[in-house]
Amino acid sequence: MVSSADVNGTEVYSRTGDHLGEIDHLMIDKLSGQIAYAVMTFGGFLGLGEGSHPVPWKKLSYDTSLGGFVTDITQEQLTGAPTWGDNWYEDRDYQRRSYDYYGVSPYWL
Amino acid sequence: MVSSADVNGTEVYSRTGDHLGEIDHLMIDKLSGQIAYAVMTFGGFLGLGEGSHPVPWKKLSYDTSLGGFVTDITQEQLTGAPTWGDNWYEDRDYQRRSYDYYGVSPYWL
Repeated sequence: MVSSADVNGTEVYSRTGDHLGEIDHLMIDKLSGQIAYAVMTFGGFLGLGEGSHPVPWKKLSYDTSLGGFVTDITQEQLTGAPTWGDNWYEDRDYQRRSYDYYGVSPYWL
Repeated sequence: MVSSADVNGTEVYSRTGDHLGEIDHLMIDKLSGQIAYAVMTFGGFLGLGEGSHPVPWKKLSYDTSLGGFVTDITQEQLTGAPTWGDNWYEDRDYQRRSYDYYGVSPYWL
């Protein structure tokens, strides 16, 4: 298990070990206690978009040897991801689109 | 949904609105993305034990009007809870005992 106090700021790497960015915070479904999204920040490295991107939690796996998360998300996936509004974390339509887009099963079922 | 950045430090109240303590951090099951425990700190109010106590996440519900979590955990429950060692968050035996003790279904099934 990992502490929520340690997750914010944790580094995120690609499958090939490149540093992609870090986790800014997690969005937690209060009812189920399920983490729905990791909001990641990218510095523009490898052409990944700068700024914050909500990414389904299931796209991240923790690597104890790296001390960070690993994801197979690509630049193409990020730049082509469904756009989100200010209330994306309360917008089930957006969540359905983004989970479908990243090919992971919904957290809410 | 709620941000992990906002959860740490969130106040916790009893069913009758008494302030019990606050959430220090959450323990997250990395594989499933499920929050397993909220580690709460109590100040000794109402006779609740001081210090940190791991509490199954399912014992907390968020109350938007209070801006905090509500729990029905009692002083008797806290003081009689199964003891935990330093590695409680990796100790499935302890987790089984505490989830059973608080009468909530396991997060790992």
